[in-house]
Amino acid sequence: MPSGEKLREMLDRTVSRIIQSYNRHGGINHIKGPSLPAQGEIIETLESLVSIIFPGFFDTSDINPANLKYHVGTKCEAVYQQLVDQINKCFRYFCKNESRCRPERLRCAVRSDKSCLAKAREIARALLTELPELRKILYTDVHASYRGDPAAKSLDEIILSYPGLAAIAVYRIAHILWAKKVPLLPRIMTEYAHSRTGIDIHPGATIGEYFMIDHGTGVVIGETTKIGKHVRIYQGVTLGALSIPHHVEQYRWKKRHPTIEDNVTIYSGATILGGKTVIGRGAVIGGNVWITRSVPANTQIIFEPPAFAMKRKKREAAPTKEGV
Amino acid sequence: MPSGEKLREMLDRTVSRIIQSYNRHGGINHIKGPSLPAQGEIIETLESLVSIIFPGFFDTSDINPANLKYHVGTKCEAVYQQLVDQINKCFRYFCKNESRCRPERLRCAVRSDKSCLAKAREIARALLTELPELRKILYTDVHASYRGDPAAKSLDEIILSYPGLAAIAVYRIAHILWAKKVPLLPRIMTEYAHSRTGIDIHPGATIGEYFMIDHGTGVVIGETTKIGKHVRIYQGVTLGALSIPHHVEQYRWKKRHPTIEDNVTIYSGATILGGKTVIGRGAVIGGNVWITRSVPANTQIIFEPPAFAMKRKKREAAPTKEGV
Amino acid sequence: MPSGEKLREMLDRTVSRIIQSYNRHGGINHIKGPSLPAQGEIIETLESLVSIIFPGFFDTSDINPANLKYHVGTKCEAVYQQLVDQINKCFRYFCKNESRCRPERLRCAVRSDKSCLAKAREIARALLTELPELRKILYTDVHASYRGDPAAKSLDEIILSYPGLAAIAVYRIAHILWAKKVPLLPRIMTEYAHSRTGIDIHPGATIGEYFMIDHGTGVVIGETTKIGKHVRIYQGVTLGALSIPHHVEQYRWKKRHPTIEDNVTIYSGATILGGKTVIGRGAVIGGNVWITRSVPANTQIIFEPPAFAMKRKKREAAPTKEGV
Repeated sequence: MPSGEKLREMLDRTVSRIIQSYNRHGGINHIKGPSLPAQGEIIETLESLVSIIFPGFFDTSDINPANLKYHVGTKCEAVYQQLVDQINKCFRYFCKNESRCRPERLRCAVRSDKSCLAKAREIARALLTELPELRKILYTDVHASYRGDPAAKSLDEIILSYPGLAAIAVYRIAHILWAKKVPLLPRIMTEYAHSRTGIDIHPGATIGEYFMIDHGTGVVIGETTKIGKHVRIYQGVTLGALSIPHHVEQYRWKKRHPTIEDNVTIYSGATILGGKTVIGRGAVIGGNVWITRSVPANTQIIFEPPAFAMKRKKREAAPTKEGV
Repeated sequence: MPSGEKLREMLDRTVSRIIQSYNRHGGINHIKGPSLPAQGEIIETLESLVSIIFPGFFDTSDINPANLKYHVGTKCEAVYQQLVDQINKCFRYFCKNESRCRPERLRCAVRSDKSCLAKAREIARALLTELPELRKILYTDVHASYRGDPAAKSLDEIILSYPGLAAIAVYRIAHILWAKKVPLLPRIMTEYAHSRTGIDIHPGATIGEYFMIDHGTGVVIGETTKIGKHVRIYQGVTLGALSIPHHVEQYRWKKRHPTIEDNVTIYSGATILGGKTVIGRGAVIGGNVWITRSVPANTQIIFEPPAFAMKRKKREAAPTKEGV
Repeated sequence: MPSGEKLREMLDRTVSRIIQSYNRHGGINHIKGPSLPAQGEIIETLESLVSIIFPGFFDTSDINPANLKYHVGTKCEAVYQQLVDQINKCFRYFCKNESRCRPERLRCAVRSDKSCLAKAREIARALLTELPELRKILYTDVHASYRGDPAAKSLDEIILSYPGLAAIAVYRIAHILWAKKVPLLPRIMTEYAHSRTGIDIHPGATIGEYFMIDHGTGVVIGETTKIGKHVRIYQGVTLGALSIPHHVEQYRWKKRHPTIEDNVTIYSGATILGGKTVIGRGAVIGGNVWITRSVPANTQIIFEPPAFAMKRKKREAAPTKEGV
């Protein structure tokens, strides 16, 4: 066992070698420059926003008409300050650290910190101002889940416990920030929802009202996906891109993901790929269907299960193929 | 940048507009009436119950024969109070807020708060009383995982780290409350497990002893599923419903999900659908199999993989279809 | 309603019955003997390690060249102490409680606590010493994700938000401890990552540099999988075992999972099974492909989607099969 002395020496050696490696492997350090937004703060902000949108569902303290204005006011003020802080961090990071900075994507790229902060305030205000609109569309999403899921016993159950709604709410918040060209933050938000729900919606996707995702684990909705109104999606559905070549630069800003028109239902495990693939309004895509071409409106795509052998089991037969 | 004055005005305007929207979009607010159970408390209660069921595995303080009685006693008392509080909140919420309240489902619908509280105490007591029984059946589940998974090195490893067991434990607790017709709480519990494990077991499902789920991400077990003893399920298995019509009311209380008899094994990615579908005892369902009709006892369903083209790759060929 | 008296009696009865059940159902209690490592501590240690590996990304306090040495030093010292404590707990647990203890796997099985502690210190030191090497390989993983994902806007976005990278980082840490035959701890670490990301990588797998997992939900990589360099994997991919017989003992230490050679890409939902299955270098496995035999180098396996019926929808037709 090393004496305190030996331990100290060992630690000193290790620390020096780690710090040397910081210099050796750049691009995965963030030592100089403005600090990045911290995930903990972002989650807190998201949860405050959701509790403003659905008052009384996620509050530990009772809310009543008497304390409502005070309650919401306090929350909004806190959220505003948090948003300004985080958005500003993202802009400053982007301006200073982003070698590949694209002026066409982020106008403030050449501005001073001051204007980053001004822009952050502007966007935080805009997000708060859009909350009533956001409530309106999430209201339609809650109703879509209630109508679409026989297991749902009440609207409250959906708000309190449905992962699909949780992921959609975070996506809709993140998408507003994405549309305002805030770097990093929108993706950190949707990846937090992904972690909690298994539903991976890129903040760049555009999604209409009355959207429902049931169960949701394994759902992937890519960056350039376009989804209309009254669309229903079940667990394990991928709305993805076709093959990715080994040099992806020219693909980074292209439409790579499908377009889903109004009133489409896509059942579990279906895969729909390609930026030119359009699923026409009212179409129904069966479970496990694999689609890389467009589907006309009001058609049903019914999966024909591949043949399977059915045979009498021998005593203690080794079971069939599986995936453990 | 707005002065403090301007900021204050902006916030006041925003808050008023948000509160107006609370009146506009009802059904997604919970401003009046009794407060709902808070997810944080529910998770705490669940974790205490699990640490009572598996003593010494999730306790930060050492447990030994000397302090055991005191240790368990303290935990049980805390859990009892938490359960009474949460169940009571659920009943009061249900009695007062549930427009679609069904007397046949919840007898206390017309009672006073007092009897909600009395009923909550009765159910909390009943749950604690069932803990030894619950331990007995979870003991069989732990053994099923050990026997079924060559990667398992000990029973302790399963209790400490297997998501399948964690999801089953939460389901078995939630199912007891479901059977006693507690609203909201059971589903909030299983959705917490879903969030942690990717395994979505509805508290309404009935599942026999020696149940094993391996890996588990993407597993969905619907509300009216019936599962016998010694059943094994792998990741991505769906035990689901057939098509959902657009008016679901008449489906809300029907059996929509399959029946799985004793000693059945269902390998990864298999989908079994429909309330009349019965998988006979001892059957083995291969990976990725898609089933919507019953399967006789002791048969193997072997997936015949669909044909695939195998071709020599051109230099830097774009890879084949995929789902990003 | 029971008086405090009645409540007390009820609790006492319940507690006694629970404690009796502890004696009845052994193997799922951990009452005597050394305490097990607590998941909370393990997560804290993991997060400290990750923040040492990626400085400035997950730190709440600013890091700058001036405080860097102090910052890293403090973290390393804390991590060292935590690792020693947890590894020691795992060894002591294993020595004392592991009836199936295998001397060939863990040399200290017959030693005293003291040598368990000595071994724990040795391994904790070794892990810290390997951190620069670990940074070097994770650096390649970050770059692989950037090159492979058109949606990635910067390296920082990947470190801050990509679940694939998070799961790989935890796996690489856990694998070091696994290789040093630390019981329990590696698996608890990777199951924590599994819970956060839906990506289930067994710490026993061996994985080369430039490894990328995109989206990742539902990925399963089994204990004896071997993966080369520059391999890309997408959501829902299983690298698994063939059938598991009902007596698994003889399988516990065998190679049951496939070998994936360098520069292989495996698209979403593909399943590759069997310890003798080898995917040759440069091969591309298409989405949803099901493989149980080896694939030659530089071949593409293209999934031929099963036929599907396309028919005009009747008004308000019940949608096709699905999995809810």
